Amino acid sequence: MSDFAIGVDIGGTNTKFGVVDKQGKILYQDRMLTNDANDVQDFVDELHQKLMPLIEKSGGIEKFAGIGVGAPNGNYYTGTIEYAANLKWRGIIPFAKITSEKFGIPVKLTNDANAAAMGEMMYGCAKGMKHFITITLGTGVGSGIVIDGKIVLGHDGFAGELGHTIIRPGGRLHKGTGIRGTLESYASATGVRETALEMLSDNPKVDSVLRDSSINDLITSQTVYEAAIKGDKIANDIFDYTGQILGEALANFVMFSSPEAIILFGGLTKAGNLILSPTKKAMEETLVQNFKNKVKILFSNLQEADAAILGASALVWDN
Amino acid sequence: MSDFAIGVDIGGTNTKFGVVDKQGKILYQDRMLTNDANDVQDFVDELHQKLMPLIEKSGGIEKFAGIGVGAPNGNYYTGTIEYAANLKWRGIIPFAKITSEKFGIPVKLTNDANAAAMGEMMYGCAKGMKHFITITLGTGVGSGIVIDGKIVLGHDGFAGELGHTIIRPGGRLHKGTGIRGTLESYASATGVRETALEMLSDNPKVDSVLRDSSINDLITSQTVYEAAIKGDKIANDIFDYTGQILGEALANFVMFSSPEAIILFGGLTKAGNLILSPTKKAMEETLVQNFKNKVKILFSNLQEADAAILGASALVWDN
Repeated sequence: MSDFAIGVDIGGTNTKFGVVDKQGKILYQDRMLTNDANDVQDFVDELHQKLMPLIEKSGGIEKFAGIGVGAPNGNYYTGTIEYAANLKWRGIIPFAKITSEKFGIPVKLTNDANAAAMGEMMYGCAKGMKHFITITLGTGVGSGIVIDGKIVLGHDGFAGELGHTIIRPGGRLHKGTGIRGTLESYASATGVRETALEMLSDNPKVDSVLRDSSINDLITSQTVYEAAIKGDKIANDIFDYTGQILGEALANFVMFSSPEAIILFGGLTKAGNLILSPTKKAMEETLVQNFKNKVKILFSNLQEADAAILGASALVWDN
Repeated sequence: MSDFAIGVDIGGTNTKFGVVDKQGKILYQDRMLTNDANDVQDFVDELHQKLMPLIEKSGGIEKFAGIGVGAPNGNYYTGTIEYAANLKWRGIIPFAKITSEKFGIPVKLTNDANAAAMGEMMYGCAKGMKHFITITLGTGVGSGIVIDGKIVLGHDGFAGELGHTIIRPGGRLHKGTGIRGTLESYASATGVRETALEMLSDNPKVDSVLRDSSINDLITSQTVYEAAIKGDKIANDIFDYTGQILGEALANFVMFSSPEAIILFGGLTKAGNLILSPTKKAMEETLVQNFKNKVKILFSNLQEADAAILGASALVWDN
């Protein structure tokens, strides 16, 4: 009998994994460094070694319906990880096949952002929704799109790369892709930091605690938030600017798939209303009549560390 | 036995309708002025009067499975036409219900751009495709999105308004919506005309046959095309500029739903390679690696007048 699923979230730095029951409770979890292993077989061997004790504690492998994996550039159709920029493994890696052979149970794989959307749909604030979009505002900007209750995969499995859509043509250069003006260049952690540095340099006469060199060295959305709630003008301007761009991008997404809600998660959402208000305002101003005042912008209510594991495990229960 | 369907395409000026068989052959067709009737009941009465002879010629109403209607702001879920800017009928019109009561057969309704996408899928160059987007480059810019073989309707029936997505933030004002920098402001017939007037005025020293006042008064994508193939520099620049913007917008759409193809139709496509080349180039330059050299841009092979009727009739056969 299948009581449990394993969720594995492969990130650029850490790989998190856990045993999850059908109610979305994580019974056991652990993590390992993603790029310690030299090749993918070593990685899967280490994953197996770390997971087996958790599997045994849960009653053995017979209790498991399968393994769900979220990975950068993961392709649901083929079970492969393809040319993932942040992973050591190059080319097209048949990750689901290798993992399934090692564990002896079915393995489903998708990209990490799609896994997060699955998690929201099964256990998070998108429960019961059939049309929504999740946007991760983290190191990068990821996205998962759900239409009619299904993740949008596209003809090749790579749909939903909304962080790479253009919103400021000819604007800021994205170093990873070489393309200018994409959403990720502004609404990611790196983007917020770059906005902060630009604003500090463009407004040399405006006082800001962000100028303090010790802080300046490590400006994050967290330090900007702390400055903003103390009334720091530049810190507040950074959120307004980021929200304006994010809101316009969200409007474009809404006019594509007309979702019931957009669910945000990741570091930037910790700024709460400071980022939500300008985002919502810009989105509403950019929407044509049909769409105005209809679409909710929500913050995920899943714990960030758990969301990735839950989302990946949800792949196992999904038809 | 149901051999036939009726397709009705309600446009701002003309309403076209016809009898269509299951193979997509239009047996009989006719048209009427959309805004002659004072209210929707008068309109449906006139439509009935004009259609009945065609229905009788086809063997009577018993031979018909239903009526499919494409209309601006048509909502598939509710069968209503809602706040259509170019129609006389105001508010929310229960068009499918009124028409079904008049004819005594089922009526399905969707917006005109979705109907066109249905037509492409059943009878046009998207036959056999499960993931594609159609873009109409006409008086306005309309769009129909197909994912997994189904038209994307969204939570409220209004998905797929890609002409209103922003591609030049703060750019040209769209008089109808009051929003700046949307695709429709550049890639529609009106947009091309505005680009022409701007370029002529910005480059007073550059010779152009488009300056000839008699032509200037009625610049259309057709006159720009005729000038361009004769080597007119400004005319060629107009297509390059329009293609650049359209291509960037298409890249954004591709990174949303990863379609197999984008199918263009409407007046602007008559310019052939003059618009296709710069569009394709800009799209490819804007796409991140995963999507490059994968997505076809095609011109519709359906006759424009027929496409609308065929698409609307296809609603009847669709499950």
